[in-house]
Amino acid sequence: MAALGIGLIGTGYMGKCHAMAWNAVLPVFGDVEAPRLLHLAETSDERARQRASELGFEKATGDWRTFLDDPLVDVVSITTPNQFHAEMAIAALEAGKHVWCEKPMATALADAERMQEAAARSGKVAVLGYNYIQNPVIRHIRRLLSEGAIGEVNHVRIEMDEDFMADPTTPFSTRSALASGYGALDDFGVHPLSLLFTLFGHVESVVTDMVKPSEERPLSGGGARKVENHDVASVLMRMESGTSVVLMVNRAAWGRKGRIALQVFGSTGSILYDQERMNEFEIYQANGPTENQGFRKVLAGPYHQPYDRFVPAPGHSLGFNDLKVIECRELIAAIGGKPANLIDFKDGLRIERSVHAMAQSFADRGWVRVEA
Amino acid sequence: MAALGIGLIGTGYMGKCHAMAWNAVLPVFGDVEAPRLLHLAETSDERARQRASELGFEKATGDWRTFLDDPLVDVVSITTPNQFHAEMAIAALEAGKHVWCEKPMATALADAERMQEAAARSGKVAVLGYNYIQNPVIRHIRRLLSEGAIGEVNHVRIEMDEDFMADPTTPFSTRSALASGYGALDDFGVHPLSLLFTLFGHVESVVTDMVKPSEERPLSGGGARKVENHDVASVLMRMESGTSVVLMVNRAAWGRKGRIALQVFGSTGSILYDQERMNEFEIYQANGPTENQGFRKVLAGPYHQPYDRFVPAPGHSLGFNDLKVIECRELIAAIGGKPANLIDFKDGLRIERSVHAMAQSFADRGWVRVEA
Amino acid sequence: MAALGIGLIGTGYMGKCHAMAWNAVLPVFGDVEAPRLLHLAETSDERARQRASELGFEKATGDWRTFLDDPLVDVVSITTPNQFHAEMAIAALEAGKHVWCEKPMATALADAERMQEAAARSGKVAVLGYNYIQNPVIRHIRRLLSEGAIGEVNHVRIEMDEDFMADPTTPFSTRSALASGYGALDDFGVHPLSLLFTLFGHVESVVTDMVKPSEERPLSGGGARKVENHDVASVLMRMESGTSVVLMVNRAAWGRKGRIALQVFGSTGSILYDQERMNEFEIYQANGPTENQGFRKVLAGPYHQPYDRFVPAPGHSLGFNDLKVIECRELIAAIGGKPANLIDFKDGLRIERSVHAMAQSFADRGWVRVEA
Amino acid sequence: MAALGIGLIGTGYMGKCHAMAWNAVLPVFGDVEAPRLLHLAETSDERARQRASELGFEKATGDWRTFLDDPLVDVVSITTPNQFHAEMAIAALEAGKHVWCEKPMATALADAERMQEAAARSGKVAVLGYNYIQNPVIRHIRRLLSEGAIGEVNHVRIEMDEDFMADPTTPFSTRSALASGYGALDDFGVHPLSLLFTLFGHVESVVTDMVKPSEERPLSGGGARKVENHDVASVLMRMESGTSVVLMVNRAAWGRKGRIALQVFGSTGSILYDQERMNEFEIYQANGPTENQGFRKVLAGPYHQPYDRFVPAPGHSLGFNDLKVIECRELIAAIGGKPANLIDFKDGLRIERSVHAMAQSFADRGWVRVEA
Repeated sequence: MAALGIGLIGTGYMGKCHAMAWNAVLPVFGDVEAPRLLHLAETSDERARQRASELGFEKATGDWRTFLDDPLVDVVSITTPNQFHAEMAIAALEAGKHVWCEKPMATALADAERMQEAAARSGKVAVLGYNYIQNPVIRHIRRLLSEGAIGEVNHVRIEMDEDFMADPTTPFSTRSALASGYGALDDFGVHPLSLLFTLFGHVESVVTDMVKPSEERPLSGGGARKVENHDVASVLMRMESGTSVVLMVNRAAWGRKGRIALQVFGSTGSILYDQERMNEFEIYQANGPTENQGFRKVLAGPYHQPYDRFVPAPGHSLGFNDLKVIECRELIAAIGGKPANLIDFKDGLRIERSVHAMAQSFADRGWVRVEA
Repeated sequence: MAALGIGLIGTGYMGKCHAMAWNAVLPVFGDVEAPRLLHLAETSDERARQRASELGFEKATGDWRTFLDDPLVDVVSITTPNQFHAEMAIAALEAGKHVWCEKPMATALADAERMQEAAARSGKVAVLGYNYIQNPVIRHIRRLLSEGAIGEVNHVRIEMDEDFMADPTTPFSTRSALASGYGALDDFGVHPLSLLFTLFGHVESVVTDMVKPSEERPLSGGGARKVENHDVASVLMRMESGTSVVLMVNRAAWGRKGRIALQVFGSTGSILYDQERMNEFEIYQANGPTENQGFRKVLAGPYHQPYDRFVPAPGHSLGFNDLKVIECRELIAAIGGKPANLIDFKDGLRIERSVHAMAQSFADRGWVRVEA
Repeated sequence: MAALGIGLIGTGYMGKCHAMAWNAVLPVFGDVEAPRLLHLAETSDERARQRASELGFEKATGDWRTFLDDPLVDVVSITTPNQFHAEMAIAALEAGKHVWCEKPMATALADAERMQEAAARSGKVAVLGYNYIQNPVIRHIRRLLSEGAIGEVNHVRIEMDEDFMADPTTPFSTRSALASGYGALDDFGVHPLSLLFTLFGHVESVVTDMVKPSEERPLSGGGARKVENHDVASVLMRMESGTSVVLMVNRAAWGRKGRIALQVFGSTGSILYDQERMNEFEIYQANGPTENQGFRKVLAGPYHQPYDRFVPAPGHSLGFNDLKVIECRELIAAIGGKPANLIDFKDGLRIERSVHAMAQSFADRGWVRVEA
Repeated sequence: MAALGIGLIGTGYMGKCHAMAWNAVLPVFGDVEAPRLLHLAETSDERARQRASELGFEKATGDWRTFLDDPLVDVVSITTPNQFHAEMAIAALEAGKHVWCEKPMATALADAERMQEAAARSGKVAVLGYNYIQNPVIRHIRRLLSEGAIGEVNHVRIEMDEDFMADPTTPFSTRSALASGYGALDDFGVHPLSLLFTLFGHVESVVTDMVKPSEERPLSGGGARKVENHDVASVLMRMESGTSVVLMVNRAAWGRKGRIALQVFGSTGSILYDQERMNEFEIYQANGPTENQGFRKVLAGPYHQPYDRFVPAPGHSLGFNDLKVIECRELIAAIGGKPANLIDFKDGLRIERSVHAMAQSFADRGWVRVEA
């Protein structure tokens, strides 16, 4: 496969994460051409130049539109704030580029729909950065479920909790403004939804409750401002498959730093997973002598591919950034016309619709169907 | 305090548990008169005699009504199947006895209401066997919450899971018949409700989803019968205090044996607890250097009273039966007119009403208010 | 079996623990006669009377020798400080009583040898209160080992840690005086040795290192006194079977409250156990697909007998005191001439000899053989 | 700082790990010049070419000596089997290159000594690949210890366990031949020794026991061969500081995959760490109310530098390979004359001497002093 030319827009953490992935994908996997890190765009030429030097890009620009004309650019990584995703992704797709856009798709559902339409028109690969689904442990759980390792799944619980909004004395920021979204629901609710989609398909209906742990937050200049969205959301859900799910998200959960805790109950066993310990999972299988049954804690190892591309020995831990390298390898496969484990704009739109249905359910105080 | 005369009806596990508690309360606490284990009632004279010998009771009868006339009997322990609670409790109260009745109160809400009325009329102590609230760890958590150790509580999650109904090949039993109740919701949903009541007060409104992991179960004689109630229930709740709670119960949760997992999120910290490891809890307090903050696992010790009455050294574990001994000591206090940590028929009725509101919410597919 | 008459000497925590066990053994097991709690001896008549009332004994005395003449007394529970064990046990045995003596046997090896000789002469049951071996989980581990569940055992590690001596500002007490023994080694080193004996037999040779975390301790009246024994001991051991063991004890281990952590490595698997979570163990068995292998956490349940005598449901936790009830039931079996799971004075003496060999190894700075 | 020219010898897992680190160090840290991956050496030209293409090196050779003449090469990464380290490292140092050599230094102590002499003569940076010490969590623990967070350390236990030698049916390989070393002791015993050195300095004296779980192993062609070294080693140690340490290594420990479990006991607290969960540690500090004291599980976060260079959010996990990137950044610092957190050949030699003293102690059955 020929070397890909890469353009990157945005160099916050996720931009750096994309850059690290593009750098690592060859030495880790060994079976791709070294990507060419061509263009990096930031909000000014100067900032772009500095970040290009730090992240190993050849050229820098303060205007991301400029490099859409460069025929050497094959893929555009979009890692800017969410409100810019739609404009950039649509422009890149219309310029004939593949798009690797960070989640969530957009702040408005209409924008996400336009992105999906642009992707469909373009025939290009257009995928979202839902890296948690790349964890070899998650891939293995999916395989176990499909092989019937715990029989038929009948109930699922998933929690995503962090504490960056937990301190009531943290000043009001855009995160608490309605313009930035519903709060925890779309801020990181989309992450567990990406896992649920990967493992169990799409959501059919929801009923939601939401909470504001802080009614208002201090303003830096004195005074306070009412908090406009919700840091806690709890949702009863039914999947299209009929499976019942409880989804709980809380970005004000003191002590939780990166928890995505999954409990899957089946007719012959159960599976547990927690992203804070992303290199292990637990499985209970109701077989063998009752007196010796228990949850088995399995450590990630080379038999959970592609862990083996990173480390040949089990129990030696992949890290969060490694997931992006796997995602990058999947993207290269998709661009090469191979099957790939990714969430494209079409499935991503379904995730966005689930989120909006949840918010509507809270407003209406009742069950809401998700548009298919 | 004078020695109490005890009558016991029912000698299944909970009957034995009461007998063990009445035997242990003196050597453990040392500050009560030795209770006199006078009468034991079972379904036949013969069975009663055998169990009286095994459990250390003086007299045995196949007719529980007979000993209500014995003036030496002060307290009646009722540990029979749930459908008999109302008749027995009301008769005992009307005979001027104190009543210690196992949970839940009754299978029909109307019966629970009659029990509460009889208790109110009698002026006697009438309490329910919600022993989980007696755990010194739970008592300590309550104290921590009341002292503001994690600030203002804004969100709670509680799960109760066991797996005795998990195997789809287990034959149909009365547990799966509508006559025995809604399923997981009242089978053991009342346990987490007792903890929620103890820690956070009464429930105000609920919305429920329920699942049947098995649509039907085999009959011993061949064929199968439709399952009539639900082994899984999930509830979004608001407490009268406004606190948002997610309650999840699952009696088909493979691998869970006695899980009652509690997560309490507050404005300055969080508390975690799991009944399967009933001698510890975790607390996160957002103070001290950020780089050293974490969940602190606290082992039960003599400073969590009345743990000290059982063992003087920390980390040496109380057991499930010890909780009943503490409950017994509380009951003796209540009979002596002292303040006691117990759930009486009045508060118990509120718990029953919550359960019924949950079931109604599932039927109506919407939020339901709990009758106060 | 006829009811046993009980005499109890000493009413500190272990005395109370014996009393609780004698009270509970009937209602728990149901298959014994109710023991008669006849005599309680303490250091004065008055103290004895108070404790007899609290613990449910019929008579009280300030002189333990008096009740050795009572023909109704069948068993004497000895729970006094260690230096009195020898005198009391020998007198009781010579008076024709069975003896249930708390561990360790004695402070001097010669005393332990005299106790063993008296027991041998008497033909009576003479056992030590090593209750940890009664845990249904430990019994189950022994069965698993004997059934070859992890193949041939080749290496064992065992740690016992508490923190009651961890604070350097705790004043000097007799615990730190040479007269009370070697320190951690005999203070609680005998507990892991009782487990090792139960699971793997006797010790053959040892090499020891010991540490004094505090060189001196403050005296209450001012000044300080040199610490005379060691709060930390580490021992490399070989069992008579050839198995290699590392024994580590630390009574100054901050944060450890009742830890007895066992790791057993075999040719086809491993087993883990920790007394701080005494209702569970972990087993790894190298079978099935590699990618699903892991340590299986098994919760104690009714299939781990005699857990079922306490609670019929798994995952509901026995407590520390319940172990003493099981020990009591074993003692009654032994008195009735039945096989019993107990450590008698003969095996107890071997444990004492191991401890003394360890101390000698530290003095000699080399390997020492344990006298058989 | 100018770009470094890199030569790499060996492309097994550790060779790949070096290549990944050289590729990642710029995008991760942003403050270095992009290293030039110039030469890759393997056992044949063909194999070298293939691996150079996979790992992103410019040139390939079947003879590592050829690139020592290239003045553009500044650093040589040596990742070949241990028996080649001495020859290669000495040649590279004599050619004026910096050397980054994987651990352990050499199979013979004399070789390690020659390596150290060559390093001293050269004035070049000569360091060993002890990457576990780079974990931000380990660095933080070191800082905590130096700040007195748990007072004065008095006792340490460290275990390193994996199970790649656990299966007795695994055929005899060079790992079990004496020529490859003592077994677990130097195979991975040097890893915990690197941690001990980093945290507590050098070893003063040791006493060792070792075990062969399998006396012989099958030969592929039929028959069996006696195992010549030991898969299990246990060591009582004293550090030069006087601290007592128990070191336990087991490469036949079923179920352990990458365990390096550390327990540090101090006068005011304790610290726990396990490499299998390398993104967390536990600390117990004996302050605050006793009833709330416990081990605090701290998740790695950006405040544990340089975690922040990889991920800005806590609880998101670094991986094993990330440690090598940190090590690479430290190496670049050292080459630039800056202070660096590395184990150079001088300290590495002390680690080797400790290992050899341990083996001698086993042969002599007694305490042995480590040569300073």
